[in-house]
Amino acid sequence: MASTKAFYAVIAGVGAGTGRSVALRFAKAYPVVLLARSPSSYTDIVAEIKQQGGEARGISTDTSDPAAVASAFETIKADFEQEKGLKLAAAVYNVGAGFAIKSFLEVSVSDLDASLAANARGLFNFAQATLPSLLEAVPSSPYPPSLLITGATASVRGSARFGTFAAGKFAVRALGQSLAREFGPRGVHVAHVVVDGVIDIPRTKGYTVNEGKEDGKINADAIAESYWHLHTQHRSSFTQELDLRPYVEKF
Amino acid sequence: MASTKAFYAVIAGVGAGTGRSVALRFAKAYPVVLLARSPSSYTDIVAEIKQQGGEARGISTDTSDPAAVASAFETIKADFEQEKGLKLAAAVYNVGAGFAIKSFLEVSVSDLDASLAANARGLFNFAQATLPSLLEAVPSSPYPPSLLITGATASVRGSARFGTFAAGKFAVRALGQSLAREFGPRGVHVAHVVVDGVIDIPRTKGYTVNEGKEDGKINADAIAESYWHLHTQHRSSFTQELDLRPYVEKF
Amino acid sequence: MASTKAFYAVIAGVGAGTGRSVALRFAKAYPVVLLARSPSSYTDIVAEIKQQGGEARGISTDTSDPAAVASAFETIKADFEQEKGLKLAAAVYNVGAGFAIKSFLEVSVSDLDASLAANARGLFNFAQATLPSLLEAVPSSPYPPSLLITGATASVRGSARFGTFAAGKFAVRALGQSLAREFGPRGVHVAHVVVDGVIDIPRTKGYTVNEGKEDGKINADAIAESYWHLHTQHRSSFTQELDLRPYVEKF
Amino acid sequence: MASTKAFYAVIAGVGAGTGRSVALRFAKAYPVVLLARSPSSYTDIVAEIKQQGGEARGISTDTSDPAAVASAFETIKADFEQEKGLKLAAAVYNVGAGFAIKSFLEVSVSDLDASLAANARGLFNFAQATLPSLLEAVPSSPYPPSLLITGATASVRGSARFGTFAAGKFAVRALGQSLAREFGPRGVHVAHVVVDGVIDIPRTKGYTVNEGKEDGKINADAIAESYWHLHTQHRSSFTQELDLRPYVEKF
Repeated sequence: MASTKAFYAVIAGVGAGTGRSVALRFAKAYPVVLLARSPSSYTDIVAEIKQQGGEARGISTDTSDPAAVASAFETIKADFEQEKGLKLAAAVYNVGAGFAIKSFLEVSVSDLDASLAANARGLFNFAQATLPSLLEAVPSSPYPPSLLITGATASVRGSARFGTFAAGKFAVRALGQSLAREFGPRGVHVAHVVVDGVIDIPRTKGYTVNEGKEDGKINADAIAESYWHLHTQHRSSFTQELDLRPYVEKF
Repeated sequence: MASTKAFYAVIAGVGAGTGRSVALRFAKAYPVVLLARSPSSYTDIVAEIKQQGGEARGISTDTSDPAAVASAFETIKADFEQEKGLKLAAAVYNVGAGFAIKSFLEVSVSDLDASLAANARGLFNFAQATLPSLLEAVPSSPYPPSLLITGATASVRGSARFGTFAAGKFAVRALGQSLAREFGPRGVHVAHVVVDGVIDIPRTKGYTVNEGKEDGKINADAIAESYWHLHTQHRSSFTQELDLRPYVEKF
Repeated sequence: MASTKAFYAVIAGVGAGTGRSVALRFAKAYPVVLLARSPSSYTDIVAEIKQQGGEARGISTDTSDPAAVASAFETIKADFEQEKGLKLAAAVYNVGAGFAIKSFLEVSVSDLDASLAANARGLFNFAQATLPSLLEAVPSSPYPPSLLITGATASVRGSARFGTFAAGKFAVRALGQSLAREFGPRGVHVAHVVVDGVIDIPRTKGYTVNEGKEDGKINADAIAESYWHLHTQHRSSFTQELDLRPYVEKF
Repeated sequence: MASTKAFYAVIAGVGAGTGRSVALRFAKAYPVVLLARSPSSYTDIVAEIKQQGGEARGISTDTSDPAAVASAFETIKADFEQEKGLKLAAAVYNVGAGFAIKSFLEVSVSDLDASLAANARGLFNFAQATLPSLLEAVPSSPYPPSLLITGATASVRGSARFGTFAAGKFAVRALGQSLAREFGPRGVHVAHVVVDGVIDIPRTKGYTVNEGKEDGKINADAIAESYWHLHTQHRSSFTQELDLRPYVEKF
């Protein structure tokens, strides 16, 4: 197997939970680029990765804005591809804004627009920016170049008062399936992960879920292990979709 | 059972196929309002309905534009509710723009935006405009007031080169499920119809589908019968989703 | 449209709920044959149909037993096809035994066998007995000859403590899909109905479901209207699956 | 993390493909018991495992027969639990008989029975024999004790001419979901794997699938890696279902 040294990874949507853990996990193998709207979301993670001997760079961008994404990837490609001569082994789309729990008659079209922009439009821009690089890495990458997408319960179920959020998440799943069917046969692994539960991060410390049972919230590092597994799957045995939920979660 | 005479219906997205047939079918029971972006889409149908003894009015509007929808429904409510004293028995969302079959690397974000706007944003605006009227009709309507939504194969499957269209259609299905779960218990029947096949309309005459077999394209009047059935279902036995496809369609 | 007079229907699994209502509904158009394990299940329904001017005959058979089914259909074909010259327009499989709610470690393999036999094996025998007659009716039937199958929540969801029942119901759905894909293109309409709720019959009078709300249990006559709608769908617009549930049901 | 040394695994349905690879993979961590109807299916695998320094024992049994399974597990528990003092960390159900591709009118009820017996009845017996041991291992097992079940395309889709096979596979999926919902909260990880493609084994060498492309058949060792990943998932992040298919497979 080829070394992972000549490759890099990019993770969009880093913060306290899945994004941070995925960044740390992939940074064990690759230099990683972290995308977030503001440096406050990635500065600490970049430091943490460097402290563990990894390589990381944060770039501020709004993935829902095509021009911003184009500009961010100009920088990324100049730095990681042209200068360092690396190829893109993995791209993870983990942006999750647009969450609103409201009765439908109280929600506004701007809530819907925010969900569609952060989820579907963001993935669209991110996929258009990364797929050419992923395709280029196909012949040499130690593992099949991967586009991994974070979904949620709302990706597969439109619950009452979650309509606008579900609209964005369903749309992301639609794009993911289409990309898997178009780029899978070209060697890029596109997978969608349905995260069905509350993630255990500082912001959710106060939430009581699953009757407060131990491990009733999802450990973000555990999610990251499944992303790494998806990335390392042999191309004869790709998973397109899997669910992740606490053992005590009702479903 | 109460008479249907004190009620009206509104159909958004009329043209040659499903919208026209649904309008004609519902016009047998109710005065109908037809929404389309331009009069050329509804003028003939309005005439046809009147010729058959029904009552119809066309209004030009772009359902993806909240202000346009608000203005159209001001007119509709003034005319049908305040003046004529009718209540809204059925609202059908049948807008289907945003269709593009392109390789993902050739599609533009404006294709995605067009699909999300026509499908998800349009349904959002339409549902916000009609649900208050539908709720008001619950106690007196002869059949449960209904919000019926037209879906497609792309509502449940993201095929290669159909990503942007599927994104819009998946989002519509998400909204439909959320609305069904929120408004079903309040007496409004929200149903989503997965139309899986090519509809037999003038524009598709030249297409050869299902090896050209007789009835290999969907008869739009047959679709309309299923919409009418959905509308007349007893509230103890609502269908949330059904599929419609030609007997010879592969699925 | 051809008259329905030269056709008959057969309903397997009649009792107090769906089977009785479907029999009464189809008896408005066709002479009907009612199958049940014992006469006590069909005697009153046969009388009720005759009283309403319809024609009905009950036959005792265990649909899970291939020999019993073969013998019952020998009688049916001799009487309705050879003697009366009728063709089979509709066959409804509504047998629903095998229901056990038990912790998996307390359920026995005979519970599983009972569910698989009543549901999957019964449908298998019934479909093998009726499909040749349904195929024969294709050229002349006023509506596409139909094989309609009753499913349940457990057809699409394996809940805790419902494993054996769900096994039987999932298997039925599998057969239904396979038959739809094989016989749809030959003109027979195979549809599967997911009944998601408690049916309002004498046996369930004491159950409090959906907080006791009016119409919180499914009206069996309403189910029957949807079966009739499925039967009368044009062949260019077949539904393969639909769900039916009370407006107040959580799903 | 506790050592894996005090634990064992059992794999039902070993032969040339998934079963063999899963056995070899789990044998890197645990002594393994291999179940198959005849020694010819496991003798070589037992030898191969021993050669690689692992521990394995084959036992002949027909999983569809409750008495045979009870007797096999008496032997297994006496040997591995009572004598060696091990606990059961993983149980894999990979039995896949009952495959028949036939027009429905040519298939016999014994084909259906064979599929239901090998798939659903076999899993039922195997789960009843292993779950008590898996539950006992919960407090001490290094990874959550796992019941892993092999599914197929036919687990989620009833294709024409695959009805009897799909009936068995759907029923297995139903049982798997029910067990996941009942035993997940008690700490046992129940997962179902939809293998969607042809496995690359000696028997399929002659098949041309996916236009003969390299890696167009599934590498069984790759499947085994995903089973191992499922087994090692943290209990806060269980996958209930995933699909596995070649990158070039149409879906």
